[in-house]
Amino acid sequence: MTEVSRRRMLGTAGLGVLAGAAAGGGVAGVAYAHDEPAAPAAVPFFGPHQAGIATPVQDRLHFAAFDVITDDRAELVRVLKEWTRAAALMTAGRPAGDAVPKVAEAPPDDTGEALGLPAARLTLTVGFGPSLFDDRFGLAARRPAALVDLPHFPGDDLESARSGGDLMVQACADDPQVAVHAVRNLARIGFGVVAVRWSQLGFGKTSSTTPSAQTPRNLFGFKDGTNNIGGSDTAALNRHVWVARADGPGADWMAGGSYLVARRIRMHIETWDRTSLKEQQDIVGRDKGEGAAFGNAKERDPVRLDRMPPDAHVRLAHPSTNGGARILRRGYSFADGSDGLGRLDAGLFFLAYQRDPRSGFIPVQRRLAARDVMNEYLVHVGSGIWACPPGVRQGGFWGDTLLG
Amino acid sequence: MTEVSRRRMLGTAGLGVLAGAAAGGGVAGVAYAHDEPAAPAAVPFFGPHQAGIATPVQDRLHFAAFDVITDDRAELVRVLKEWTRAAALMTAGRPAGDAVPKVAEAPPDDTGEALGLPAARLTLTVGFGPSLFDDRFGLAARRPAALVDLPHFPGDDLESARSGGDLMVQACADDPQVAVHAVRNLARIGFGVVAVRWSQLGFGKTSSTTPSAQTPRNLFGFKDGTNNIGGSDTAALNRHVWVARADGPGADWMAGGSYLVARRIRMHIETWDRTSLKEQQDIVGRDKGEGAAFGNAKERDPVRLDRMPPDAHVRLAHPSTNGGARILRRGYSFADGSDGLGRLDAGLFFLAYQRDPRSGFIPVQRRLAARDVMNEYLVHVGSGIWACPPGVRQGGFWGDTLLG
Repeated sequence: MTEVSRRRMLGTAGLGVLAGAAAGGGVAGVAYAHDEPAAPAAVPFFGPHQAGIATPVQDRLHFAAFDVITDDRAELVRVLKEWTRAAALMTAGRPAGDAVPKVAEAPPDDTGEALGLPAARLTLTVGFGPSLFDDRFGLAARRPAALVDLPHFPGDDLESARSGGDLMVQACADDPQVAVHAVRNLARIGFGVVAVRWSQLGFGKTSSTTPSAQTPRNLFGFKDGTNNIGGSDTAALNRHVWVARADGPGADWMAGGSYLVARRIRMHIETWDRTSLKEQQDIVGRDKGEGAAFGNAKERDPVRLDRMPPDAHVRLAHPSTNGGARILRRGYSFADGSDGLGRLDAGLFFLAYQRDPRSGFIPVQRRLAARDVMNEYLVHVGSGIWACPPGVRQGGFWGDTLLG
Repeated sequence: MTEVSRRRMLGTAGLGVLAGAAAGGGVAGVAYAHDEPAAPAAVPFFGPHQAGIATPVQDRLHFAAFDVITDDRAELVRVLKEWTRAAALMTAGRPAGDAVPKVAEAPPDDTGEALGLPAARLTLTVGFGPSLFDDRFGLAARRPAALVDLPHFPGDDLESARSGGDLMVQACADDPQVAVHAVRNLARIGFGVVAVRWSQLGFGKTSSTTPSAQTPRNLFGFKDGTNNIGGSDTAALNRHVWVARADGPGADWMAGGSYLVARRIRMHIETWDRTSLKEQQDIVGRDKGEGAAFGNAKERDPVRLDRMPPDAHVRLAHPSTNGGARILRRGYSFADGSDGLGRLDAGLFFLAYQRDPRSGFIPVQRRLAARDVMNEYLVHVGSGIWACPPGVRQGGFWGDTLLG
């Protein structure tokens, strides 16, 4: 990989930004370093949709949910503008600011651990949780109807310390150090206004949005996301992922955005590992080696529901049994140490984007929670839903259709 | 990257092993699939030293400490033999056994999530903790004098759930899914005999054993490990890392092995990030951009202690102020969610190999714990020490110089 590294930006990258911000009129204006070319392997930050949704899934994840700890709307807007500026830089492979400030008595404006690393296809995606639409910021009337509180599903064992959050930041990159650096610097920039509520590292993607690529495997050892929505399938994205202006109450500011549902799904991998291959395959509805659905020879042959056990996971989750509902999955495997009982705390950090959770995740999960035999081998322990606004225009900021 | 993948091994890789084991006489013999060529990017498993110590540091880590939950020495030996067989396969890029067994009523002998992934330079390194040398296995008299219990250091705030362990497995690979897969399969194989006590994922290496490579940065944003022992510096390895037969009581079975000290060091990164560049540099003793020691222009210029603040970290840890002691570091950054107080639970999982901790880690850490100003920004919360036996000969098994 030959990429322009952050190294040569060191000590100069922040200057254009600071000069631009000063010229642009302080906090009211958000300035970007338009003139510097982005590093190769950089994903464009600006556009009609936020990057990190239809973007080909990167290898690693750092996900963070934040609480807003002020009720000053202007402070929240200031942080979102500063986040936008920093995100535009970091996704281009540049520091968030001066890692080595000219005045050594000042703290650096970038924490430095990604110096010398490439952009690594970093994307940063922001969402607003239901709790942001309480009475603190005058947003109650702007809450989209689709941003529902998720219902309780049978079997849920949710921890509040792994659930919810006024804001979320999804950082995806091919290098985890780049993803962690980005979240850490956003937390640093937001000090005093937002605080990390919980965060989750994902070490391996479990779904792909690139149909031609090798399908990743989850920690059950099965290929996952074979029939996922392709990131370049514009028709499917417009139908199932991107919100349209006419979508109903609160949809005006969400047009071009999407709703994210996150679930931390602990897998009982030790139990699964002692289960026969036959039972594993019956539960999933696919064979383990090739990933072909029952009755098929190849992974990508069309699923034939009649050839499948009635409660197989693939059958229960299939669009044809869910009124055509499709969701775009881009979840990651996690392994967070052990649980004190000699078992790995490992599983799937499920992330799914959709145009409307009421016809997307919620009905599918109701079916799965009620009937999926796979439930014997997993438990949902964390949960969240966020409205992810449309992409940022040049000169705009994250959420400006709501808060601008 | 063009590598022989596990994909084409699917369903056949385990056969040679199983046939070999049967021909070799069951549990007493350990058979390997010698005839299959290792995948490119595979690190040789057999040799005079365990891989994963002098091996060029891989990008990712999954570290696991195990308790032995039986007092049956034969069972422990059986698991170590099965681990050895599985490790030889997995480090060659092959499944630990049949991921798709011919008899579907049997559980798979490999969990499957690394099918299709390359070897990714996987190394698996095993060590024996002080607690293994109690009266359960008749090993008390074989405990090496150098395998001391680590003393309490000022400022330590150790959690028992992150400390100790009868056994440790260090899995390093360039792909975290490969490292997690390896630990998970060893845990699966050891079911009923060993149980995971704690484990730690590391997302980014903080030290290199390849002096010519770009020096990685830790989460303080500084280059780390500039003067680390090079993995090909045989003289330094023999002097500072590998145990020699004449090293004293208990050293006979450890010749060619090494002692590992692990420390989970939580970094208060939010506090660090609000510290001036000058103070950060004074604490470390190097400049942040280049990584040059005080008074020098370049990172690799020899350190000049007289140019450095008296309590700078580099000065306190330098061999010339510690009787020439050097340790081989191969630690990793971690980020394990948040701490419930709005701060990331992040830091350095310090791993250091040495010929004798009594002249290596312990005196250096005594000096650092007493005087290092960096202590204001970190706390040691986990700790362990293990005797890592020499490498495995063809036909041998992990620890056979002790238990064979």
